[in-house]
Amino acid sequence: MNTFGTNFRITTFGESHGIAVGCVIDGCPPGITLDEHDIQPFLDRRRPGTSPLVSPRSEKDRVEILSGVFEGKTTGTPVALLVKNEEAHSQDYGELRTLFRPGHADFTYQQKYGVRDHRGGGRSSGRETVGRVAAGAVAVKFLAAKGISIAGTILEVHGKTAPAAIEAEILAAKNAGDSVGGIAEIVVKGCPAGLGDPVFGKLDAAIAGAMMGIGAVKGVEIGDGFAVAGRFGSENNDPITKDGFSSNHAGGILGGISTGQEIVVRIAVKPTPSIAKPQRTVDLHGKDAEIAVRGRHDPCILPRIVPVAEAMIALVLIDCWLEQAKIRA
Amino acid sequence: MNTFGTNFRITTFGESHGIAVGCVIDGCPPGITLDEHDIQPFLDRRRPGTSPLVSPRSEKDRVEILSGVFEGKTTGTPVALLVKNEEAHSQDYGELRTLFRPGHADFTYQQKYGVRDHRGGGRSSGRETVGRVAAGAVAVKFLAAKGISIAGTILEVHGKTAPAAIEAEILAAKNAGDSVGGIAEIVVKGCPAGLGDPVFGKLDAAIAGAMMGIGAVKGVEIGDGFAVAGRFGSENNDPITKDGFSSNHAGGILGGISTGQEIVVRIAVKPTPSIAKPQRTVDLHGKDAEIAVRGRHDPCILPRIVPVAEAMIALVLIDCWLEQAKIRA
Amino acid sequence: MNTFGTNFRITTFGESHGIAVGCVIDGCPPGITLDEHDIQPFLDRRRPGTSPLVSPRSEKDRVEILSGVFEGKTTGTPVALLVKNEEAHSQDYGELRTLFRPGHADFTYQQKYGVRDHRGGGRSSGRETVGRVAAGAVAVKFLAAKGISIAGTILEVHGKTAPAAIEAEILAAKNAGDSVGGIAEIVVKGCPAGLGDPVFGKLDAAIAGAMMGIGAVKGVEIGDGFAVAGRFGSENNDPITKDGFSSNHAGGILGGISTGQEIVVRIAVKPTPSIAKPQRTVDLHGKDAEIAVRGRHDPCILPRIVPVAEAMIALVLIDCWLEQAKIRA
Amino acid sequence: MNTFGTNFRITTFGESHGIAVGCVIDGCPPGITLDEHDIQPFLDRRRPGTSPLVSPRSEKDRVEILSGVFEGKTTGTPVALLVKNEEAHSQDYGELRTLFRPGHADFTYQQKYGVRDHRGGGRSSGRETVGRVAAGAVAVKFLAAKGISIAGTILEVHGKTAPAAIEAEILAAKNAGDSVGGIAEIVVKGCPAGLGDPVFGKLDAAIAGAMMGIGAVKGVEIGDGFAVAGRFGSENNDPITKDGFSSNHAGGILGGISTGQEIVVRIAVKPTPSIAKPQRTVDLHGKDAEIAVRGRHDPCILPRIVPVAEAMIALVLIDCWLEQAKIRA
Repeated sequence: MNTFGTNFRITTFGESHGIAVGCVIDGCPPGITLDEHDIQPFLDRRRPGTSPLVSPRSEKDRVEILSGVFEGKTTGTPVALLVKNEEAHSQDYGELRTLFRPGHADFTYQQKYGVRDHRGGGRSSGRETVGRVAAGAVAVKFLAAKGISIAGTILEVHGKTAPAAIEAEILAAKNAGDSVGGIAEIVVKGCPAGLGDPVFGKLDAAIAGAMMGIGAVKGVEIGDGFAVAGRFGSENNDPITKDGFSSNHAGGILGGISTGQEIVVRIAVKPTPSIAKPQRTVDLHGKDAEIAVRGRHDPCILPRIVPVAEAMIALVLIDCWLEQAKIRA
Repeated sequence: MNTFGTNFRITTFGESHGIAVGCVIDGCPPGITLDEHDIQPFLDRRRPGTSPLVSPRSEKDRVEILSGVFEGKTTGTPVALLVKNEEAHSQDYGELRTLFRPGHADFTYQQKYGVRDHRGGGRSSGRETVGRVAAGAVAVKFLAAKGISIAGTILEVHGKTAPAAIEAEILAAKNAGDSVGGIAEIVVKGCPAGLGDPVFGKLDAAIAGAMMGIGAVKGVEIGDGFAVAGRFGSENNDPITKDGFSSNHAGGILGGISTGQEIVVRIAVKPTPSIAKPQRTVDLHGKDAEIAVRGRHDPCILPRIVPVAEAMIALVLIDCWLEQAKIRA
Repeated sequence: MNTFGTNFRITTFGESHGIAVGCVIDGCPPGITLDEHDIQPFLDRRRPGTSPLVSPRSEKDRVEILSGVFEGKTTGTPVALLVKNEEAHSQDYGELRTLFRPGHADFTYQQKYGVRDHRGGGRSSGRETVGRVAAGAVAVKFLAAKGISIAGTILEVHGKTAPAAIEAEILAAKNAGDSVGGIAEIVVKGCPAGLGDPVFGKLDAAIAGAMMGIGAVKGVEIGDGFAVAGRFGSENNDPITKDGFSSNHAGGILGGISTGQEIVVRIAVKPTPSIAKPQRTVDLHGKDAEIAVRGRHDPCILPRIVPVAEAMIALVLIDCWLEQAKIRA
Repeated sequence: MNTFGTNFRITTFGESHGIAVGCVIDGCPPGITLDEHDIQPFLDRRRPGTSPLVSPRSEKDRVEILSGVFEGKTTGTPVALLVKNEEAHSQDYGELRTLFRPGHADFTYQQKYGVRDHRGGGRSSGRETVGRVAAGAVAVKFLAAKGISIAGTILEVHGKTAPAAIEAEILAAKNAGDSVGGIAEIVVKGCPAGLGDPVFGKLDAAIAGAMMGIGAVKGVEIGDGFAVAGRFGSENNDPITKDGFSSNHAGGILGGISTGQEIVVRIAVKPTPSIAKPQRTVDLHGKDAEIAVRGRHDPCILPRIVPVAEAMIALVLIDCWLEQAKIRA
């Protein structure tokens, strides 16, 4: 299943070291002013090679709009977005043909399909998110016109919360041939009440699925999240007054539908599994082996996941927005 | 969206105080031995009125199979499951016609639809989960034949972990006209490697969406969850040996696909929002008001959510199992 | 696949001689005034036992709305519709357990599922359409409020076109233990331009699929249908003038989208395969046999198919209407 | 809706005079031997410029596989197929910016979206079918390995059935600045019994929808089609014997499920609406106008529709094949 959304449906395609990655948006509303400049900044935020904190793979990630836009406006037909893979060092990945990297999808893809493109993780590479971010940029543009904005921040990396400490922590891990995890928070502002669809299309359910569908995410919270487990109902309920809710423990969602408050989402991201330190693994034949993952990796993937998380939330919201249009058709 | 699943698709229907609740399963494989006795025990686990710890509403929740089963076996046609509502005290809910209960979906349903069945929460009531649990029982039966089992346990209620302390905490909250939250863990045993579908049909994404789609759930973790944020990659990766994985921080899922290990899921459940203590709210016209929720409520909803969570995970797994059949068609 | 539609989704369930038939509508807009009296007349048009021309099975087909309606209005939650089976003479069908009726789905269900409810055709019985017609009635009510109406007429039965000749032809076939086929036309009035969704959601494609999805339908035409094969483009194109189109060869659809003209659909319906005359067949073990189908059958199914065809077109149109709401969201 | 299929899902994209056309296949089974040479011959059959009978637009239609294939085999990940538009004479279409061509989707796209790419019909151009045919080629390869083949033939053009007469008829129409319609038949051989999914996923319903979803198709028949309307049941039923069915009026499908016989489909195709003869129309402002469609058009579109129809039937069948895998999962 490489398709996300029911109204604004994106299908991503492409492998890390194939010819290209990209996506097709089916269900994009007509009349959105759009060209490549609306999308490129989002790809630039997620692309590698931009700082010592992230992978040095130097992809330009130039997006090309192949269809669905005419004279600067979307036409309601599918928007195909293409990003060519330029700097694919496949030779770095030769040993991955036979060895499974711990913490990666190598083993499970092999189990599932009986075949896999091992180069740089193939389809399971984070590079697949290029298509999501490109599509998310279109969603962001649509939502911005409705007054909705989405912004993510890093709360914590390996227990540190101050920016300088976080940077130091990441560099230390990098130098040690290791990696670190962290927590990010994404906040949606300007979302009106009424978005989200009970029972199985709940806004928080859709967001949780979208977040956990990002590689490396292992936990999701809405509003106060796990903290609610230690509360009384009288503490946790958000009182309603004629001036609106007087608190937001719920994170802007009740019964799966937006309340009109800020929507607050937190995600826990595991340390990048690709590390230079030697690890125990097996080969295709189940024989014990050792692997030290070469290639160009992120000592902390969190900074590059934040724009992906924002994109996914934008995709959820535009989907809900379009769904909502049916209610009073 | 009241439909869940793409291969084993369930559609639930019904309101808390309407004529009946239930569901239709479309895509149920033929040849499953099935009668009401396979389903009833699951409904009995989630139904109210069974202990002082849960709501005293005394529903028998007798399930009737209306279709899709012939001479004790499923035929591949839709399985419709019906549970009549018997003990609906709608008079308890008269003031809910005009007042929004804090922490409930009353306000958001009204915003979304402009109309709502206010009686006992109508469609947003936990009673809707009867249909999920009934369908889940069918999935459980199918999965059991494949050697897969699912079991949930309560880890913690309002900070307490010992069973006696948990029970005391719940009763204390009840007596105080209040409610408490908690954490449960659901573990899947016997799941083979290969289930789950990259990119957007990841097993963990589907589980996270399913969990957050249960009312009152505010957080979801797979495997070590939020704890991974404080780890090094070298600690968090699960080494692979010829005898299998030597740890399970990942919770049995890599790249969205099952590894063959136990699948470990944790959920945070908020305190029941229906409490007898007075709370501030507004009425339909936005005027300030006070509400003390009457009716028969659970001082801690967690025990009744566990079977729902198990059912939802069973629904996710059967869906993945059927999806997997296509891979080597 | 027992679900139809993407926005107004119906799932039908039930077998001819089971406990009940019915359907659940997921995606029904809120605020439609609805009670059983809005649905019953549609069921009465398709039900058997009403004239010597149709099956004498005497079902009352009383519909019950189980959910989704509150104080006379739809709430946006699933509308479950139930019709109990009352007069099921299963004993008439004993030999169908082992014999396949020619022209019926008995053989193919057995091949597909390896098991089947043989009583009266089980799920493949025309009785399944009760659910479609009930759901269609809700769609008709919605569409009527938008000024859209749908009406079918019988054009021809076994080569005869005059009502009296048609009736005589059907009775003659009945008396001979045989059956006859025919052609019906369904016309939609009041449909605005713009409904229907290129490329794979074309209005005519959806209608054609819906029509061919009715048992016994073997041909579908839109507008002039097969007659266009013998035309020049200059004859067949519908000129456009400032007062609108000056002809309607296209049947109200261009490029899969409604033009605002009448939508014209024709269907060819085969003679009922259940006939009293002896026919060659085989049993479950592939042994040659003879069958004379007992039970209560329609000598011409066309009159009872017309309301089903209308219902299906209503379901297609409401789906397109809701889809269209997203365009200018 | 630019996506077709539920298991083998294709999404096509691209406009006639945009940068490229193509499609993404989501759900392609792993392990199919595939390279561009498997696809190109199918595109060559539908492409223009190959004979005096079809449009002289001279597109090479070179397909490029962007993803989903590794070392000559599909991997189970999305297969993206791209065909660049090379010979787009957009200047031929200047007047189409403001004039609606009769018989085309110009008017209805404008009504639906309020905006359209008018160049060569934009998205509504037959050029969109490049993506379908490319995807169909992959399906054909899969089906061939299962012993299933699909072949279409032209039965009739403008009333003529002999090949020489058909060719003369087409050239005469071309010389007159006009166009002609016709009928084609597509036959599937080698399809086993059991494919197709009651109730709404019937094989014939899916085929009918797929056929009517091809631009210019106005009628669809399965088996004997409209001829059944004039039959007795005793004539029309296909008797079953221990050696199989003794006739095939049903066209290989009963109750929506394949019988194991040949599947027989006929389609009626209207004369190409683009003709050089002047026609009455209106402009964007509703003012009366006259149009003589310039550009490079097919005097009879039928020969180029046959490979599209074959492709669509292949897509239906692979979808049913994968669906069937779930039955005995």
